[in-house]
Amino acid sequence: MDDGAHTLPVVGLTLGDPAGIGPEIVARTLLDPGLRDTVRCVAIGDAAALRRGARACGFDLTVRPIAARDVAPDPDPAVVDILDTATVTDADIDAAMPWGRVGAPAGAAALAAIERAVRAAESGLVDAIATAPINKESIWAAGSTQPGHTELLGELTGATHPDTMFVVGGLKIFFTTRHASLRKALDLLTPQRVDAAITAAHDALRVFGDDEAPVLAVAAVNPHGGEGGAFGDEEIEILAPAVARARTRGLDVVGPVPADAVFHQGLRGRWAGVLSHFHDQGHIAAKTFDFDGTISVTVGLPILRTSVDHGTAFDIAGTGTAEYASMREAVRAAARFAPSVPKLRNRWAV
Amino acid sequence: MDDGAHTLPVVGLTLGDPAGIGPEIVARTLLDPGLRDTVRCVAIGDAAALRRGARACGFDLTVRPIAARDVAPDPDPAVVDILDTATVTDADIDAAMPWGRVGAPAGAAALAAIERAVRAAESGLVDAIATAPINKESIWAAGSTQPGHTELLGELTGATHPDTMFVVGGLKIFFTTRHASLRKALDLLTPQRVDAAITAAHDALRVFGDDEAPVLAVAAVNPHGGEGGAFGDEEIEILAPAVARARTRGLDVVGPVPADAVFHQGLRGRWAGVLSHFHDQGHIAAKTFDFDGTISVTVGLPILRTSVDHGTAFDIAGTGTAEYASMREAVRAAARFAPSVPKLRNRWAV
Repeated sequence: MDDGAHTLPVVGLTLGDPAGIGPEIVARTLLDPGLRDTVRCVAIGDAAALRRGARACGFDLTVRPIAARDVAPDPDPAVVDILDTATVTDADIDAAMPWGRVGAPAGAAALAAIERAVRAAESGLVDAIATAPINKESIWAAGSTQPGHTELLGELTGATHPDTMFVVGGLKIFFTTRHASLRKALDLLTPQRVDAAITAAHDALRVFGDDEAPVLAVAAVNPHGGEGGAFGDEEIEILAPAVARARTRGLDVVGPVPADAVFHQGLRGRWAGVLSHFHDQGHIAAKTFDFDGTISVTVGLPILRTSVDHGTAFDIAGTGTAEYASMREAVRAAARFAPSVPKLRNRWAV
Repeated sequence: MDDGAHTLPVVGLTLGDPAGIGPEIVARTLLDPGLRDTVRCVAIGDAAALRRGARACGFDLTVRPIAARDVAPDPDPAVVDILDTATVTDADIDAAMPWGRVGAPAGAAALAAIERAVRAAESGLVDAIATAPINKESIWAAGSTQPGHTELLGELTGATHPDTMFVVGGLKIFFTTRHASLRKALDLLTPQRVDAAITAAHDALRVFGDDEAPVLAVAAVNPHGGEGGAFGDEEIEILAPAVARARTRGLDVVGPVPADAVFHQGLRGRWAGVLSHFHDQGHIAAKTFDFDGTISVTVGLPILRTSVDHGTAFDIAGTGTAEYASMREAVRAAARFAPSVPKLRNRWAV
């Protein structure tokens, strides 16, 4: 009997910071029977960390180090595969990487897992990676100077403009600015930046979408889309001209659309994507609509990477209580977008 | 057999601008059998306008003018009651108030309906009013100088600080600022204004809630709640001190909470209310979560008023195609909050 396992996409799940909830949510995801028909999962990181995370959840599982793509049919459900970075032993892990604590060994382990994951994706050992959360201070203690995953992945792949796309329901959400204060973000809303954001977003819709002619809606920033200038002029001065320029470049872009309608319309299928302009504009929409079902995909990389959108939760790490829905959805999204890998490799090869 | 009809709350539905979709959505709501067990509806406005709206929807109904509270049991489902303002006749309405057109007669009719509704609520003829949309230019043409319903209701009741509360799911959402550009709204975020908004919101939670000790969460304005000042200082400088001051005043207020989590948490029941600071902050959350189910309640009035949160839709007025879900939900909310009428009358009596 052919169960089709050899055709399943393979997704690598990095453990993230071993002192955080990453190993627990990866263990729970690896054991989720609901994923078995659509994806083959492999952990990436320290086998000792995965074993410790599984124990915290009360799981009795066997961790099997692998070195090559393995999609043999009918895997034993109690055995989980890992690309073992082996930075720590079972005997040392509690002392070296205590639960819920910032530290260089945990940071180094997180970095090693990410690098291994990137190489595995580049070589085709996995089709995509889904990343568990890391701790900034720990990776800094371990010598990295990057502020987060996205920049780390840029450094490791040589990609120059990695960016974040949210996927929620059937909608893709993009951002003109993200990690800036709201005041600063308003200042950053320049014609050049909006042009670039529209182009990148539309590009990503073509790479990740099924639709050859996707429509991108550009959100407004002011109430009622500025109401003809009565409530702000960014729509008139910046956004409408940028939409017009994009259309002359042949992109199917509409807007600016009042932001309290545009996400609803997109979720109902009217738009393939929405360009939001501030962190919370897109985040409020996605996370209020479906908190655990919102996943992020890094666009602009030559590899496919999805991610949870929560932190290491040091306060509950090691207790076995962490919710793994976001990791499960990140894996599902990685599997769903796996057919896009040739397109994104072609588009964003460095 | 007592069907309990005499104990049902009575809600008055203003027709709004007769040239807009108001009469159609009111007609559809009056005929909705799903409302019959929980509320007794009465239209308020021109009987000629309601008849024309019903005809546009293809309904054959009898409009019965009434002059007093009537909650006789077992009403005829094909007869709808109206407090008839009689500003126009069936013979004249198409010429005086053509569908989809701005005009003084339509504006005057909308104003007459609102005034009649306020008086009916004050006298107890109805327990609450649910308002259909009006057109600003038409009411201005008819001599009003008010920018919208809320201010009109303030003028008619003498209330000095009417304000908007959104209700979506079980959550109540408030606003520190609303109809201002995002830049201007940031400037308006002063300690005084936030203090007043917190007080008003908490007050409204007590008036409209079942909970004697409601918790209000104050949203942050910057990404990750400012992340300790890295992404903006409004949380540190303005919001956290305002929350602390509110707590010393004995109000159960928490925050600032990152805005991409606070609405989700509220919808899950963690908070009775959320204070948002900008129009779109609260609007994106509510309308992306449940576009048609988001209704607005005016707080600070001595009468109970709920409202649709859409416009007159002049482009489709008279076609019988308007969606009435928002009006139906406004009526449901009016019925649900009717037990709060003694509390709000007491609290906001002028």
